[in-house]
Amino acid sequence: MTETTPGTSRVVLLGLGDMGTAFARSWLSAGYPLTVWNRTASRSRPLAAEGAEVAADPAAAVAAGRLVVTCLLDDASVGSVLDGVDLTGRDLVDITTSTPGEARARAVWAAGRGARFVSGGVMAVPPMVGVPESGGYTFYSGSREAFAEHGAALSVPTGARFQGDDPGLAALLDVALLSAMDGMFAGLTHAFALTRRSGVPPARVAELLEGWLAAMLPAAGEFARRLESGDLTTGVASNLAMQAHGEKTLLRTAEEAGVSTELLLPYGELMERHVAAGGGDEDGAALVDRLLKAPA
Amino acid sequence: MTETTPGTSRVVLLGLGDMGTAFARSWLSAGYPLTVWNRTASRSRPLAAEGAEVAADPAAAVAAGRLVVTCLLDDASVGSVLDGVDLTGRDLVDITTSTPGEARARAVWAAGRGARFVSGGVMAVPPMVGVPESGGYTFYSGSREAFAEHGAALSVPTGARFQGDDPGLAALLDVALLSAMDGMFAGLTHAFALTRRSGVPPARVAELLEGWLAAMLPAAGEFARRLESGDLTTGVASNLAMQAHGEKTLLRTAEEAGVSTELLLPYGELMERHVAAGGGDEDGAALVDRLLKAPA
Ligand SMILES: NC(=O)c1ccc[n+]([C@@H]2O[C@H](COP(=O)([O-])OP(=O)(O)OC[C@H]3O[C@@H](n4cnc5c(N)ncnc54)[C@H](OP(=O)(O)O)[C@@H]3O)[C@@H](O)[C@H]2O)c1
Ligand SMILES: NC(=O)c1ccc[n+]([C@@H]2O[C@H](COP(=O)([O-])OP(=O)(O)OC[C@H]3O[C@@H](n4cnc5c(N)ncnc54)[C@H](OP(=O)(O)O)[C@@H]3O)[C@@H](O)[C@H]2O)c1
Repeated sequence: MTETTPGTSRVVLLGLGDMGTAFARSWLSAGYPLTVWNRTASRSRPLAAEGAEVAADPAAAVAAGRLVVTCLLDDASVGSVLDGVDLTGRDLVDITTSTPGEARARAVWAAGRGARFVSGGVMAVPPMVGVPESGGYTFYSGSREAFAEHGAALSVPTGARFQGDDPGLAALLDVALLSAMDGMFAGLTHAFALTRRSGVPPARVAELLEGWLAAMLPAAGEFARRLESGDLTTGVASNLAMQAHGEKTLLRTAEEAGVSTELLLPYGELMERHVAAGGGDEDGAALVDRLLKAPA
Repeated sequence: MTETTPGTSRVVLLGLGDMGTAFARSWLSAGYPLTVWNRTASRSRPLAAEGAEVAADPAAAVAAGRLVVTCLLDDASVGSVLDGVDLTGRDLVDITTSTPGEARARAVWAAGRGARFVSGGVMAVPPMVGVPESGGYTFYSGSREAFAEHGAALSVPTGARFQGDDPGLAALLDVALLSAMDGMFAGLTHAFALTRRSGVPPARVAELLEGWLAAMLPAAGEFARRLESGDLTTGVASNLAMQAHGEKTLLRTAEEAGVSTELLLPYGELMERHVAAGGGDEDGAALVDRLLKAPA
């Protein structure tokens, strides 16, 4: 059971959670021969009915093809699933969300077992997978040769963006974007809570939030320009002293509305510390370096 | 010194900080007679050169026209600036960022002094003021009659959106949007810090962040649909158990990169509490009600 369809090589996929299942379906739809394995066997069954081969264990799955994709809970589960499995001559593409350090260590581990390694960071939720117009994509980094060989298959579930040879780079960009999303979701959560007892319909709040956050999103580009130039004070539209003071109004509003301030407090405290240290006339971009600890 | 130009009534503006000055300039450019006052007199001088009348004190300013706009640091400064000033027959439009409770109390206070009251929440940064294509606008609520009378003048600096009779409503929507923006800025700050020592240029990080957050912004509409229907479990793309586990990867990445986790922790802890309470299969929208305290 190796390459069965000329032109479209077999994909081996370990892990059929929500994301793995979405990747699997996109390969099946595109006509790729697919071998799957999942710890909980029941999750393989629907895919078998759709044409996937189901392997009895990870070793049997890996034996079935050269391109081995892992989509598991975390890097530790990748290590435990592939423990003792012969990876000689395989190309391991791990799209499990990992830290950059874990991805780099996994690349060394894979090399020690005779496999090329590519790390992936999926910038999509499962409903966006296999839907090119959703704009979902995956960062890849690591073995350029392995990526080139499997680029066609890897471009089926989402767009595939190769970032460079450092296997940690895809993970770094992935986690940076997910962290920013967490902040945005924390903000949305707080905003919906504030208005929850007001009688304003959530759909109206959502419409206002989407418009306002979209209008404020170019702040990212302004942050970047200031980080590149080092100029934190020229032409500042909303300086940190004003913002830190305004934050108090946000906190008082949360208290009036019976909403926990836990999601708001840390950014306010960070601004206060920066103002106390003399940076009140600076732009919010100044907070970036304040988050950095001295190098160990 | 009352209405001097037929058709365009005089505007009285108290407060010439960054925002007040931007509002002032937009009225002067549109040909409105304008009387200004600011605690620190030096800030009035450039506007005098551009055609504004400068009042010696708040009482003299208020005596000059029927429409009195306050743009000060906070609600307490509005109270102290207008303390003892005769407001009989005036329409007080306060665009200082306030809490809903402060705005409602200020409306009662104004009524007790014979003034109609409109509260405003400015959804713009100063460079967007007087630039219609920037999309900046101001929420107004309170006296419908006063808003109707001054709607033309109030539509000059930014779009003017009247929200209803409750003077607290403009403040509530304003603070909800500002709070969400704070979350987004906290997320951006963390993401730039994570990548700061990676060699990836900030402009490239910004481009990725803008694309990803714009793609994830429709989550606000999904939150709203779930809050309206109460259905937190059907068709969940990324359940809270998976997100809470993924959060640990974000925290480990911050530690590897030497970045403080302070901005990420509270949202992760909120997710953990919700998962521990049995909500692991629910959508992130479930966190909204978890932020609400029991009504006092
Ligand atoms: N869902 C999203 O929105 C999304 C978006 C971007 C990236 N991702 C990433 O994609 C990866 C998978 O996410 P998902 O949504 O598919 O998660 P999920 O639905 O929770 O599935 C987790 C998968 O990992 C397996 N697994 C967990 N621990 C294991 C272990 N010790 N040994 C063997 N298998 C183990 C599970 O097997 P069982 O079926 O036996 O439990 C399941 O196949 C994660 O790294 C996630 O961060 C997800
Ligand atoms: N800038 C923005 O991006 C932005 C966006 C939306 C809303 N807003 C809101 O607009 C309002 C003004 O913001 P801003 O950016 O113009 O702030 P700012 O530049 O810090 O100016 C603050 C103004 O308040 C005056 N002030 C402060 N305390 C006072 C007191 N006790 N008595 C008298 N005057 C006092 C200051 O007078 P002095 O000149 O004498 O100090 C100054 O005119 C705030 O409520 C802010 O939240 C600002």
